[in-house]
Amino acid sequence: MNYNEFFNVALNQLRDERRYRVFADLERIAGRFPHALWHSPEGTRDVVIWCSNDYLGMAQHPKVIGAMVETATRMGTGAGGTRNIAGTNHPLVELERELADLHGKPAALVFTSGYVSNQTGIATIAKLLPNCLLLSDALNHNSMIEGIRQSGCERVIWRHNDVAHLEELLKAADPKRPKLIAFESLYSMDGDVAPVHAICDLADKYGAMTYCDEVHAVGMYGPRGGGICERDKAMDRVDVLEGTLAKAFGCLGGYIAGSREMIDAVRSYAPGFIFTTALPPAICAATTAAIKHLKSSSWERERHQDRAARVKAVLNAAGLPVMPSDTHIVPVFVGDPEKCKTASDLLLSEHGIYIQPINYPTVPRGAERLRITPSPYHDDALIDGLAEALIDVWERLGLPLGQRALAAE
Amino acid sequence: MNYNEFFNVALNQLRDERRYRVFADLERIAGRFPHALWHSPEGTRDVVIWCSNDYLGMAQHPKVIGAMVETATRMGTGAGGTRNIAGTNHPLVELERELADLHGKPAALVFTSGYVSNQTGIATIAKLLPNCLLLSDALNHNSMIEGIRQSGCERVIWRHNDVAHLEELLKAADPKRPKLIAFESLYSMDGDVAPVHAICDLADKYGAMTYCDEVHAVGMYGPRGGGICERDKAMDRVDVLEGTLAKAFGCLGGYIAGSREMIDAVRSYAPGFIFTTALPPAICAATTAAIKHLKSSSWERERHQDRAARVKAVLNAAGLPVMPSDTHIVPVFVGDPEKCKTASDLLLSEHGIYIQPINYPTVPRGAERLRITPSPYHDDALIDGLAEALIDVWERLGLPLGQRALAAE
Repeated sequence: MNYNEFFNVALNQLRDERRYRVFADLERIAGRFPHALWHSPEGTRDVVIWCSNDYLGMAQHPKVIGAMVETATRMGTGAGGTRNIAGTNHPLVELERELADLHGKPAALVFTSGYVSNQTGIATIAKLLPNCLLLSDALNHNSMIEGIRQSGCERVIWRHNDVAHLEELLKAADPKRPKLIAFESLYSMDGDVAPVHAICDLADKYGAMTYCDEVHAVGMYGPRGGGICERDKAMDRVDVLEGTLAKAFGCLGGYIAGSREMIDAVRSYAPGFIFTTALPPAICAATTAAIKHLKSSSWERERHQDRAARVKAVLNAAGLPVMPSDTHIVPVFVGDPEKCKTASDLLLSEHGIYIQPINYPTVPRGAERLRITPSPYHDDALIDGLAEALIDVWERLGLPLGQRALAAE
Repeated sequence: MNYNEFFNVALNQLRDERRYRVFADLERIAGRFPHALWHSPEGTRDVVIWCSNDYLGMAQHPKVIGAMVETATRMGTGAGGTRNIAGTNHPLVELERELADLHGKPAALVFTSGYVSNQTGIATIAKLLPNCLLLSDALNHNSMIEGIRQSGCERVIWRHNDVAHLEELLKAADPKRPKLIAFESLYSMDGDVAPVHAICDLADKYGAMTYCDEVHAVGMYGPRGGGICERDKAMDRVDVLEGTLAKAFGCLGGYIAGSREMIDAVRSYAPGFIFTTALPPAICAATTAAIKHLKSSSWERERHQDRAARVKAVLNAAGLPVMPSDTHIVPVFVGDPEKCKTASDLLLSEHGIYIQPINYPTVPRGAERLRITPSPYHDDALIDGLAEALIDVWERLGLPLGQRALAAE
């Protein structure tokens, strides 16, 4: 049997739908973010990154790099085992304490990624609640959907951020049945924010547990970087807070925070936690340094918001179809997969600007976009250059300008 | 509803079955492996680690630490995005080339862990094969079982390493149906090895694809550290080779290697690959340094085997029930969960020797054991000290000595 033929069929389907992805081979330069080197097929070129999830540039912060370097030098590179078998390293224990403190919760648990946190975290929590009903926001991330699926529990989907619909579903369910409401605080493709208090009100009313994914918010919102829930003073109302160490904190890994019992149960039962090697000590120490810094320094958060506001203003003034967003995410509407890919290619090859196209299935068909993530280190000149490059590409591809372009969405 | 009560019930069940796990808070010391600091509840103590999966001590190798430090200093700590969105960093591209070369395959793909490689790799491959039948060895690791489950495909289990049983199952299946045989090359709890050629003979005969997990073998077997399949000259016969970067290579992450089409399809379809942040450049560079070193240096592999043989000989001579093992894994039989835990506690608290107890569900009930993993850096004096400590603990707990103890297994 020619097995490669099956894989070719699957790949050709992606090519036909213009969804075949090519990865840009990038080399970051510590101290020069958002500048980077692009290892293109024609050689190495300087580019400016405009779509990184290293939102605050913490992956190049001297304290963070310093902690990684010092810890690797003192303790070596890997953890050497699962958490249970030789892998629980002291910087990891300290990181979990730091995260519990960040969210004002009794305990926290670190996973190898945010993806795994959601997948094995939600699956394990739901399985431990007898006959649990999962209530999931329609736009939840793939990792939450996989966790829900893996739990094997019944799940119902509420329309995105629609608390009236959520209440309908809660009302229709058996009051005695355990329920878990799963949602994100900040949705990364549109940049909109969940009504956390309204969701928690419903959870109280109907006796549900709440699980909130804060991966696009921790470090960036709230006086100490605790996320949208901290900003909205709702942190103590949410039962499980999930976050990432790989975006605003600039490193790798994910976590959940909550009650001591819940954390201990996930620690003891989650296969995706138990059977995998622990995070390296140097990664943990670097992350702790980033969290500690962002607890006391607001400069990054203020400058981040300032830059996002400026990008929106400059692109809007230039007539580009900036999609409405309450946050640091700046989506620019394209609405066509082919043109979205071509726009991204032209920006990179002709303007040295790297913005990945966002096509289906990450967003619905017809909602293709460029998703721009300004950081504290994108200065005025870079923003002006971005606007000029976008206008040039928009004109060459005959893409509509102005807010009327958004009407098509 | 008191949700913590549900979690308490689950935790009490583990306590009743003596399966509640307490993690040892360890601090490794680069250059002094296997010595480490144990942050015990009573203060910090020196201990010797005897159960690490940093099998060759590469996590403290100067070349590996050097690569991590240099790369973190030059490129920062995190990758800053998923592979598709700003996360594909140059050291990661180089690492994938290095891995493809290690296994003599056209391509390789890196994941955030070995667990995720198996889970999302197997699930994706099987889903892309129409009506795939999965044939799984009875002792496959949890990550493979989760991948098989997640694929949603039909699966049959063959008795551990029993090729006659595997042939029965292959013969019974529709010849036109795509089939994937999933197995490990080296099973880490017993230290036994799969009959790779016999499995590949059956795969050829019945037109099946083969998937081999080499996580406990890469770096340690074969002239260049390609694993058991390289040692047995079967690397070109296995379709998918899966390995880890977190054990013999001393870092973090996992991978698969195989045909260009298969790798490209997994890259394009696997949710656990697509929707997660890429490995940090410093981790990738450190791993590449470890792989490169072990391709040309055999000292670590030879010394590793020498140390494992010596531990087996010394413990056997002392009358301890060493379970038969063809490899570097040295399991010592206990056969009781309570005594296994107590033996481990006594070794740590009274002898400064850290060996985690291996109880159900990692091994079947009644097969509880201490699993010892000697490294190139465990010298004769440490081995003699281990034997004396074990004999002391065995006598205090009234555990049977000699090979007759194994008869109970």
